[in-house]
Amino acid sequence: MARPPHVHVNIRSAEPGRPPKAADIVAAIQAEVTAGRLPAGSRVPPVRVLEHQLGISKNTVQAAYDELQARAVLESRAREGVFVAAPTGETPEAPGGPRPASPRIRSLTLPPHRHPGRDDVALSNVFIDPDLLPVDRITECMRSVLASPGIDTRYDAMGLPSLRRHMARRLSARGIEADPDDVVVTCGSQQAIDAVCRAVDTRRIATENPAYSHAKTLFRSLDLDAIGLPLDPFGGIDLDDWEARIDAFRPGLVYLVTSFQNPTGYSYTTHELMRILELSARYDFTILEDDWGSDMLSGAEYRPTLRALGGPDVLYVNSFTKKLLPSLRLGFLVANPRVTPTLAVAKRLTTLGNPAVMEATLDEFLDRGYYDGHLRRLQEALDARYRACLDSLRELMPPGVRWTTPGGGPTLWVELPRSVDLEGLTARLAGRGVLIESRAHSFFGEPHLHGFQLSYAFSPEDRLRRGIETLAAELTASS
Amino acid sequence: MARPPHVHVNIRSAEPGRPPKAADIVAAIQAEVTAGRLPAGSRVPPVRVLEHQLGISKNTVQAAYDELQARAVLESRAREGVFVAAPTGETPEAPGGPRPASPRIRSLTLPPHRHPGRDDVALSNVFIDPDLLPVDRITECMRSVLASPGIDTRYDAMGLPSLRRHMARRLSARGIEADPDDVVVTCGSQQAIDAVCRAVDTRRIATENPAYSHAKTLFRSLDLDAIGLPLDPFGGIDLDDWEARIDAFRPGLVYLVTSFQNPTGYSYTTHELMRILELSARYDFTILEDDWGSDMLSGAEYRPTLRALGGPDVLYVNSFTKKLLPSLRLGFLVANPRVTPTLAVAKRLTTLGNPAVMEATLDEFLDRGYYDGHLRRLQEALDARYRACLDSLRELMPPGVRWTTPGGGPTLWVELPRSVDLEGLTARLAGRGVLIESRAHSFFGEPHLHGFQLSYAFSPEDRLRRGIETLAAELTASS
Repeated sequence: MARPPHVHVNIRSAEPGRPPKAADIVAAIQAEVTAGRLPAGSRVPPVRVLEHQLGISKNTVQAAYDELQARAVLESRAREGVFVAAPTGETPEAPGGPRPASPRIRSLTLPPHRHPGRDDVALSNVFIDPDLLPVDRITECMRSVLASPGIDTRYDAMGLPSLRRHMARRLSARGIEADPDDVVVTCGSQQAIDAVCRAVDTRRIATENPAYSHAKTLFRSLDLDAIGLPLDPFGGIDLDDWEARIDAFRPGLVYLVTSFQNPTGYSYTTHELMRILELSARYDFTILEDDWGSDMLSGAEYRPTLRALGGPDVLYVNSFTKKLLPSLRLGFLVANPRVTPTLAVAKRLTTLGNPAVMEATLDEFLDRGYYDGHLRRLQEALDARYRACLDSLRELMPPGVRWTTPGGGPTLWVELPRSVDLEGLTARLAGRGVLIESRAHSFFGEPHLHGFQLSYAFSPEDRLRRGIETLAAELTASS
Repeated sequence: MARPPHVHVNIRSAEPGRPPKAADIVAAIQAEVTAGRLPAGSRVPPVRVLEHQLGISKNTVQAAYDELQARAVLESRAREGVFVAAPTGETPEAPGGPRPASPRIRSLTLPPHRHPGRDDVALSNVFIDPDLLPVDRITECMRSVLASPGIDTRYDAMGLPSLRRHMARRLSARGIEADPDDVVVTCGSQQAIDAVCRAVDTRRIATENPAYSHAKTLFRSLDLDAIGLPLDPFGGIDLDDWEARIDAFRPGLVYLVTSFQNPTGYSYTTHELMRILELSARYDFTILEDDWGSDMLSGAEYRPTLRALGGPDVLYVNSFTKKLLPSLRLGFLVANPRVTPTLAVAKRLTTLGNPAVMEATLDEFLDRGYYDGHLRRLQEALDARYRACLDSLRELMPPGVRWTTPGGGPTLWVELPRSVDLEGLTARLAGRGVLIESRAHSFFGEPHLHGFQLSYAFSPEDRLRRGIETLAAELTASS
């Protein structure tokens, strides 16, 4: 640091609206020093700083400083600046301040994440293999956005209008009512969930048990009171039990991941969706549907969603994170004219707006029709991995092990016999370079499942096969 | 839409862990239909979807569907798919669901924003003239980031490590203690303020009155109880009054914009900063310092900040939004080892992470040393505009009008005699294409100021001069 920072003092003019005179500067600094508000050793503002700030001539400031030096209030040090003079002639340190209170920050934690090593098999990674993502085409679109007429310096708080039109069109083609004016572009689906949570007029929320863990921690960070609605990916949903819990707790918001629920991989049956819509009307709760998985359903087929069946009163969240590029950070929220303005404000309160270049890049990617082609190729690749995964499980798993057959999405759930020590298994597998996650933090209370999330989307077939072989060997050895 | 979406049903195998047989499919669908859970007209999953999902042969599914058609439970429609048969032979509509409750969304509003027309003079715009921003060099850096080895598909939850090192180095050079591990990159300063607000262990917050309005609305959206500490940009801060208010209200967090406060343009004197640090220790509140303005101080000089004087227990926020490019959306939070992990989680809960390309672009811009050169040019341009603005005000304003002399930052505060009808003036000026904002929403209760924010950073000199001339004419006409 060349020079110490200079202190800031208020210099006021004796006549409001007119520039201060040298006498005003002398009086102000003299008063500060006399009152002990400028300790000895403080560097006062350089002449050119006061000259500029007050809009006065350099000579006026210099005259004032000369006078203050003559009074021994200030002293000049060569090449360092002008300082408040020390009464005894010492050279004191520049002032440090008193120590403030320690920040009153509570504890918020997310599950520790072990970064897989180069040769590790990350069996529970919910992301899609980066090798399957259209990095080149995204880069090409971003280059095109940069080409002309250059980057937009501003951002649209709701998101780029043409991008919102794309999103609305795609949903409408699936029978989901969506107007571009009711689409709010977000930074991943997380920002959309957050916006709804802070705009909703309730402190009580319900979600699946096990829950999407980042949503569960989000609720806690917002001091929302959350309960879990038990989800058994093998047996489905006991809707009478859900109704009893909803009746007792009376949540104002119910957040549900209706396709390929994270972490179970469960998809709601159409009948379950309709019952949930009825419950919403009966118990007056807002539905927030997270449809992250629907583009990951094989064969370009779509199943009904809560929003498709229930209309625009169902708030709907989706994202391009998993399917396109996690680092784009693009998701969206779809609402209706009555509540979209408030949800847009809630989004703005977290980031004001998101990077315009990212939105323009996705817009270009959709404009060029790249997305459907990419999805087709991605789904084919995932389908092949899914089939290979099921084949390996059937061939290698010892009796008593069960798994779900989601048919899409990046993960399935493997359930182990209660006799298996899950923690010990996880540790032994990690020792052999195979990482599994039992998602204990996703449960409300004691987990009612005893297994882990298995991803067939992240690892190529041979690697996945190797992971499942190791798993089988450990399970057999420990049984 | 070519085909209606197909319903989703759970098909379970009679033997867990083994693939379902045709009889399992028949039993599952028959049971759903008999129980009324699949209304007539529902499209059942296409054969290839079930085949893929369950990992069984096409023939198994086809055999099951043949059996269900023979039982008149299902019916096939050419080119449309297989549907649940209508008992009477009608062709009912595909099912829509019951209507859910209307979303329980409260009202959150931000002040309406009038987009200035092409010839309007936006006198209160706090942004910097886009013509002064380094769009070409940012674009050049982004191109370089894209060149090799292509876009990173992942993102770093804390922010790119090399970018965090840049930020820490820049602060350290100013005497502000900052370790790269305690820097969290955020989406503008707004995400940093939000992260602190949701991580702090208190519901009581204090800030300046008038306040930065997006922070004030943020507090409300988080149901924080906020008070305003009166700030008079002409008279400074009455610290005894502040202490009395803090003693009575006992805030756990005090959020302060210490340089060029928005909207008043006020900068805290060094003595005021030191008193606030003492108050923090005495009344045990966390300090969140927003230092958005310090890079907008003329002459590459820096004044002490709360963080510089008080050390790492002062939480510190800054941003590149105004000075570099609003659409980059890059800010950062600086904390200390004890609280950084929680603040990082709080940030992740809103967006998980931010676009890697934007962070890499800023990193490149800083690597190339572009930022300091840009700041120097920007400050020179702003200094010229500031001088011209002061000159015009002194020349043109009628008696009784006062203004602050911040010496930096994008805005100053113009205070009008109480006899001026502020609302009427705003409307008359708008009619003449000059837009001013009195920021009434920034105040807690009745505004104790009677004026508006005047920006000399947004408009070129001739345009600003025109705006001030119009203002003078209207003030003179109405007095």
